[in-house]
Amino acid sequence: MDRENLFREMSIKNDKKILLIVMDGLGDIPNYHGKTALEIANKPNLDALSSISELGAVNPILPGITPGSGPSHLALFGYDPLKYEIGRGVLEALGLGIELKPSDIAIRGNFCTVKEEGGKLIVVDRRAGRIPTSENQKLCELLNSKIKIIDDVEVSFTPGMEHRFVVVLRGKNLKGQVEDTDPQKEGLPVRDPVPLTPEAEYLSEILKKLLARIWEVLRDRENANFVLLRGISQIPDIPSMTELFKLSPCAIAVYPMYRGLSKLVGMTVVDVDGETIEDEVKKLKEVWDSFDFFYLHIKKTDSYGEDGNLTGKVRVIEEFDRALPEILKLKPDVLVVTCDHSTPAIIKGHSWHPCPVLFHSPYVFPSGVDRFTERNCLRGTLKVSYSVELMGLMLAHSGKLIKFGA
Amino acid sequence: MDRENLFREMSIKNDKKILLIVMDGLGDIPNYHGKTALEIANKPNLDALSSISELGAVNPILPGITPGSGPSHLALFGYDPLKYEIGRGVLEALGLGIELKPSDIAIRGNFCTVKEEGGKLIVVDRRAGRIPTSENQKLCELLNSKIKIIDDVEVSFTPGMEHRFVVVLRGKNLKGQVEDTDPQKEGLPVRDPVPLTPEAEYLSEILKKLLARIWEVLRDRENANFVLLRGISQIPDIPSMTELFKLSPCAIAVYPMYRGLSKLVGMTVVDVDGETIEDEVKKLKEVWDSFDFFYLHIKKTDSYGEDGNLTGKVRVIEEFDRALPEILKLKPDVLVVTCDHSTPAIIKGHSWHPCPVLFHSPYVFPSGVDRFTERNCLRGTLKVSYSVELMGLMLAHSGKLIKFGA
Repeated sequence: MDRENLFREMSIKNDKKILLIVMDGLGDIPNYHGKTALEIANKPNLDALSSISELGAVNPILPGITPGSGPSHLALFGYDPLKYEIGRGVLEALGLGIELKPSDIAIRGNFCTVKEEGGKLIVVDRRAGRIPTSENQKLCELLNSKIKIIDDVEVSFTPGMEHRFVVVLRGKNLKGQVEDTDPQKEGLPVRDPVPLTPEAEYLSEILKKLLARIWEVLRDRENANFVLLRGISQIPDIPSMTELFKLSPCAIAVYPMYRGLSKLVGMTVVDVDGETIEDEVKKLKEVWDSFDFFYLHIKKTDSYGEDGNLTGKVRVIEEFDRALPEILKLKPDVLVVTCDHSTPAIIKGHSWHPCPVLFHSPYVFPSGVDRFTERNCLRGTLKVSYSVELMGLMLAHSGKLIKFGA
Repeated sequence: MDRENLFREMSIKNDKKILLIVMDGLGDIPNYHGKTALEIANKPNLDALSSISELGAVNPILPGITPGSGPSHLALFGYDPLKYEIGRGVLEALGLGIELKPSDIAIRGNFCTVKEEGGKLIVVDRRAGRIPTSENQKLCELLNSKIKIIDDVEVSFTPGMEHRFVVVLRGKNLKGQVEDTDPQKEGLPVRDPVPLTPEAEYLSEILKKLLARIWEVLRDRENANFVLLRGISQIPDIPSMTELFKLSPCAIAVYPMYRGLSKLVGMTVVDVDGETIEDEVKKLKEVWDSFDFFYLHIKKTDSYGEDGNLTGKVRVIEEFDRALPEILKLKPDVLVVTCDHSTPAIIKGHSWHPCPVLFHSPYVFPSGVDRFTERNCLRGTLKVSYSVELMGLMLAHSGKLIKFGA
């Protein structure tokens, strides 16, 4: 019996409520003798809660592996992040707020500049000089007006930032793996969308036709006269949280990618009026009676971490701390505060460092320590090592798991 | 996606340098109220380093499993020690400094004493009374002069200590698994080299002919008049550290077995002039610019542990401590000091106890504790449980892994 089937068989429904608060990129490192954002922040409410909670630290994927937001969130939602891979095209589409059906193909596109040479299209600039987003929007509009359908397949282009866009193909029999057309280097010819699996023949044919049509539309331009396609993918065949854990899950998140990820695992994603933590907490209170699992996502800890702005990260933690009393009034049966991955300010990017975890329920061993910090978490008493293991504990502490064996 | 393929896909080359120092058998236990070698040793440099490093403790294989040097080193080199088994014959050959080709068959041999009875050879003494090594050497010389080739297969005998030797078969089509001929008990007949897999038929035939020739040569002796063969094996089909981790690895070790193990995983093994830790560090400095991963092996902590000589173990640690400042001058980007397994002096042998780990890089949570001891390590903040997990951290802390997923 594998882990997933174990939970599928042993989870039960009850009315206890679990609240998982993900402060994106929260984990930090001290830069030798310095302090982390959690160590600097003035956060009396979180610290008071930490002393009656269990503290711990979890590796998002495996020790040393720095994850993107996709796999690290899947792990927090209780899914093996090495089993369920989310394609780049799908993730990009989710990030743009595009609704995907399981049969859709999502593709990351770049506007690029090519020249014809000996019957081939040679890439001159993979990013078409990073055209402004406004130009990108016009080009996508043009492509949408000229290319609506190929054979029986609907096509739609959605602009992203600068030269980046997403193409979605919607139709029957679109499946299999197809190679990127991006040669990754300038001076090389654009590659064909070669099928990598036998069932991908049809998809490959559609893509060839699509590329021919795009070339017709763009070829006379001097710059941004063609596209490169990457991460051609479908949403993974992933069981819902309801199927696996008998939960009625709700996502409260502002950013499209996290909203999209939540939909992938069958969460109901509610709209937040506004973008602040206070706005999110307001929405949480409104929907509190309608679900039994709540994922609340706070983005800005990660954004400031990516910018190398330790002070900004501290401010977000303090903002969250001020919102915490309102959250506690809801009396969640299980409350977990953690992150999907660390984003240390001195690294200015995601990292592999274990995520601090504050785990609160009536059934914990209270840590007794009066500060929620990475160091206290690394020495904590929460006896798990990986993000994916937290779901079992959340279910157990809320009475949602039956006994294993007699 | 399994762990190995994950690292194969995600590792990248850069010029950061990793130094893995393995103090063989370093881990110790306190014998109730006593102290371990690390607790007794006067080691100001290691202790100072420990306060700005992360401390941890790792199981070499699985909790409770006492490993030999082969699997425990494989784990430290980043290989699943349960996936890649190194045959006993191969390990014995490496220990004698024999160079093996992938197609060679290596076999552990014992000189034994047998008697003929009812057409069978019955084992009277499995070790031929533990003949002196000098006699063993003469017998191997004799066998080498009388038996050079069997069909198209070259044969060579290399003496070990007392009654032990190694036979290497070199030729084509030697493969598959063959049963030991050692019945493990005296009074039983010598067993046939029965093929355990279909492709081993030919190897089994060669071994039968080899045994007949050995019997011809030795049968008239009173003692040590035959041999028993065990651990008939080939070097495992193991990807190199360059293939898996994109490293240019270098081994600095004095003892043949560790040099041989390093070759198995594709390390460049350099010669050390002398046998002391100082000699090894001198070599390390000489080759520092030529590689990006260095495995430096210190043997004597294990040797004294095996002898039950705690004071000797302490002396080796102190000797290493005096060499540490010279090592630190090289400014490795990642420095790890650990052991392959524990060899507690009161056990006089390898044990299953977790190995203390000192992990140093700019991206750690400094332990703040001022002593590198097993007790501090067991309560440390390094969030890994197994030796094999250290490689991921060494690669991450030196920037040699790309992000997983988007």
